[in-house]
Amino acid sequence: MILSVGCTLGYQIHAPIAAFTFNVLANTDAQQRIVRETMIGTPEVPTEQIATTKGNRVLRTEVPQGPLELRYEAIIDVNRPALPAVVKADNPGRLPLSILTYTLPSRYCESDRFSPIAWELFGQTEDRAEQVRAICRWVDANLKYAPRTTDARTSAWDVWQGRQGVCRDYAHVAIALCRALSIPARYVGGYAAGLTPMDFHACFEAYLGGEWHLFDPTDGIAPDQIVVISRGRDAASAGLTTIFGKVQIGPVVVTCAPFAGVLSTTPAGSAAT
Amino acid sequence: MILSVGCTLGYQIHAPIAAFTFNVLANTDAQQRIVRETMIGTPEVPTEQIATTKGNRVLRTEVPQGPLELRYEAIIDVNRPALPAVVKADNPGRLPLSILTYTLPSRYCESDRFSPIAWELFGQTEDRAEQVRAICRWVDANLKYAPRTTDARTSAWDVWQGRQGVCRDYAHVAIALCRALSIPARYVGGYAAGLTPMDFHACFEAYLGGEWHLFDPTDGIAPDQIVVISRGRDAASAGLTTIFGKVQIGPVVVTCAPFAGVLSTTPAGSAAT
Amino acid sequence: MILSVGCTLGYQIHAPIAAFTFNVLANTDAQQRIVRETMIGTPEVPTEQIATTKGNRVLRTEVPQGPLELRYEAIIDVNRPALPAVVKADNPGRLPLSILTYTLPSRYCESDRFSPIAWELFGQTEDRAEQVRAICRWVDANLKYAPRTTDARTSAWDVWQGRQGVCRDYAHVAIALCRALSIPARYVGGYAAGLTPMDFHACFEAYLGGEWHLFDPTDGIAPDQIVVISRGRDAASAGLTTIFGKVQIGPVVVTCAPFAGVLSTTPAGSAAT
Amino acid sequence: MILSVGCTLGYQIHAPIAAFTFNVLANTDAQQRIVRETMIGTPEVPTEQIATTKGNRVLRTEVPQGPLELRYEAIIDVNRPALPAVVKADNPGRLPLSILTYTLPSRYCESDRFSPIAWELFGQTEDRAEQVRAICRWVDANLKYAPRTTDARTSAWDVWQGRQGVCRDYAHVAIALCRALSIPARYVGGYAAGLTPMDFHACFEAYLGGEWHLFDPTDGIAPDQIVVISRGRDAASAGLTTIFGKVQIGPVVVTCAPFAGVLSTTPAGSAAT
Repeated sequence: MILSVGCTLGYQIHAPIAAFTFNVLANTDAQQRIVRETMIGTPEVPTEQIATTKGNRVLRTEVPQGPLELRYEAIIDVNRPALPAVVKADNPGRLPLSILTYTLPSRYCESDRFSPIAWELFGQTEDRAEQVRAICRWVDANLKYAPRTTDARTSAWDVWQGRQGVCRDYAHVAIALCRALSIPARYVGGYAAGLTPMDFHACFEAYLGGEWHLFDPTDGIAPDQIVVISRGRDAASAGLTTIFGKVQIGPVVVTCAPFAGVLSTTPAGSAAT
Repeated sequence: MILSVGCTLGYQIHAPIAAFTFNVLANTDAQQRIVRETMIGTPEVPTEQIATTKGNRVLRTEVPQGPLELRYEAIIDVNRPALPAVVKADNPGRLPLSILTYTLPSRYCESDRFSPIAWELFGQTEDRAEQVRAICRWVDANLKYAPRTTDARTSAWDVWQGRQGVCRDYAHVAIALCRALSIPARYVGGYAAGLTPMDFHACFEAYLGGEWHLFDPTDGIAPDQIVVISRGRDAASAGLTTIFGKVQIGPVVVTCAPFAGVLSTTPAGSAAT
Repeated sequence: MILSVGCTLGYQIHAPIAAFTFNVLANTDAQQRIVRETMIGTPEVPTEQIATTKGNRVLRTEVPQGPLELRYEAIIDVNRPALPAVVKADNPGRLPLSILTYTLPSRYCESDRFSPIAWELFGQTEDRAEQVRAICRWVDANLKYAPRTTDARTSAWDVWQGRQGVCRDYAHVAIALCRALSIPARYVGGYAAGLTPMDFHACFEAYLGGEWHLFDPTDGIAPDQIVVISRGRDAASAGLTTIFGKVQIGPVVVTCAPFAGVLSTTPAGSAAT
Repeated sequence: MILSVGCTLGYQIHAPIAAFTFNVLANTDAQQRIVRETMIGTPEVPTEQIATTKGNRVLRTEVPQGPLELRYEAIIDVNRPALPAVVKADNPGRLPLSILTYTLPSRYCESDRFSPIAWELFGQTEDRAEQVRAICRWVDANLKYAPRTTDARTSAWDVWQGRQGVCRDYAHVAIALCRALSIPARYVGGYAAGLTPMDFHACFEAYLGGEWHLFDPTDGIAPDQIVVISRGRDAASAGLTTIFGKVQIGPVVVTCAPFAGVLSTTPAGSAAT
């Protein structure tokens, strides 16, 4: 699936200078290849691009007082692996340590609290893939999508008790339930085609059969329709922006759709002209 | 210094499919920040962008039979640290191992062969910075710039004996001499403003006073006028392109100049239009 | 300071096989150099030793049903850097991203909840070093050391409200307060000389003046008297042991004391005899 | 195969202080698990142990004037994967970049010079595993084992022309031939059971079917009888010791044999007694 994605982020900086990190660029690997990509700041801001060990591509910049608009546009070729038919439990003694870390509790995914619940609800089958699918179905069926009922402090345990939230909260609950079953799971931020209203999306990946597989417990969007931009233990370590300094956050416009146009053979625009 | 850099690389692929890696994107860190960047392949080729441990940003792609043109353009804000006045020898027992590795001989820089030579020529001073400057002066004064006298097999030792070569050869000799004095040194490929004729350039970095510093032994171009695109032990591990498959290499156009224009506040072009 | 440290960990494995990770070996860098080290499992268990990106040295092994005793002994030469007199706030736009991550909230350190509290209590001075020292004094003065009042689910926020706990809880509160002030802070597990009763210890490091510095908010043990064995965002990612399978945990004996003996010139014992 | 390995290295330091790195500890991963390990310096020298990205475990230390003896002993459980029956050529467009780097020429393995030779000698079969085996047979049949005919400057191309050398030279030629066929290959230093006379050994690994496999072109020692202690592009980046300062090298004793004894349940010795 070829997707056209992008965002425009507006800010008003009130301090003499503010520092930003942006994690909105498409990650790139064999599953997400870049056809075209443009990132433009107005006024022009020199940015440092940092690749993290998790594969995130973080922009970092410092901007003086005044307005800032960051605009990102990309065309991404997405090809995800199919989920194996049946997945046996991994031997934790053989999992790479960097994977094993995603079975541990984190700020928003207190998986240690979910253990008895998870085994009772999802322990009937031994197929790990089916367990993750059952978790997604349960989350979709039992949580109520309710914007503005949760905030940046809300954790999976809070959502479990309140039974409502947004995509971020759905993802946290699903991750906590996976980890409670010792299935490595991590938080994913991304662009998702077909979202209404269009916005950044949160979903998650589970490690099944030796590979990470993407799941969307909120809207059931297919993995090929999602472009990953951040990965981490939860929203605390996979945030899209970090701001240091007094800054007023302005409008956010996000786009993501199947690429329908014809790829021009003449560059549509260039940095130097 | 704000530089406008870029290249256009043409190929004709004769095999059903060919695999490429391109290492022509500006590295990015606090010394090289990106104002704008565009990379466009014609026909459209999805690429995977890989960050190496040395900071190189490698594009990898597979392309079917036919023509390929890769065009890269960027505006880069370059700020290099000043060289300290006097630099004492590092205690090798305290250097990070990842730095110490750049004191070892490599394919094109047989520093083990240069030890007596280097100490005789440059051992009078104990100031490590002055030693590197003296090496640059010596290389510039004693080698003859002579295109097509050397090739992809020519090593520093070959150049030492033949006393001629191109920027790549100058860099290899300078690196071998630095390492022979136990000064960590690494090969740098880049864009350089003021080069005649314009082309990709090769120079090197020496580790002095706890930091890497850039030197150009061929043309004496100032560090702020150079945009680094590849780093490695020598040209063998810092090559700009690797091609797998039957491919005819076409015209290469390289640009690098101080950015003179006005940075537009309206994006000059965008991926999705 | 030369310290003699060690532990003996006993287990009874009830499953046919159990997998373990042990993070009890001394980390090793310029601040912690190893004079001698022995790790012996009874019955003999082949272990894989894994170095993590944070510098932890993790042992991983699989053990069949029956008893297991792991015994570790080491002599470590500890040399910590002195804290600078006055430390200015870091520019977050310049901090390495791998450091910046330690300003974010984590499972047990919900620093996002502590912000107003931290600035009110510790915002009078601008000296970051003094802020951390004040946090340690506050934690020591206001928390009551009370074993068995907290457990593996207790977070910094819980401790803040309950005002009691053990070294792990003290560390979590101190870390959360540091991060609330945007001071990078991380959890440290280790051996500590002078502890009564002797056990593994938890303390923390704060990033001040370009370097990590060790603080013990519980017992005020000097940094040179502590041997670091694990580092992480909090106890969730810096745990000392992870066990997969049905295992009964037996006696734990920990030792840590200034090395008083004479280092023998004849090896005290050897693997092959 | 459980192997008992070790070495005793003697030095006389003539400078006030000398810096050393030692790369003689067994690497450890799922294929090489450690049952016991002891490293003792006389006089006692605190060492820093550094894990490199290639999996080497490097000791670094500084030692004052006088004698130094380093003694290492370990019991290692070695389990190597079997070579697949037939191995197809890798698609270089899909190989991880960190593997692809081992197809490039290096200081002692000028694979670029060997291309026509390698294809002529070993290009009849398309089975990559058979190509590597044929290279080993060719090297064994056509090189003469001749100590002291080569030295630290001798490269694969030199050996190709002289047709004699030691294990290090055999390995370099085999690696250069593999790389000339685009098979990733890397240099391995290690302990090898059955060597006469006993010494450190050099062999190599080829990347076949998605995994590194060990080959010994000199003595045909089975992979399970070899304990890897260093990996690198060639002897330049996989050296066993590096010495900075005026040091006289004394006797080297190396041991490696199948472990025949009974593993005692009482620790044979301990660091603290």
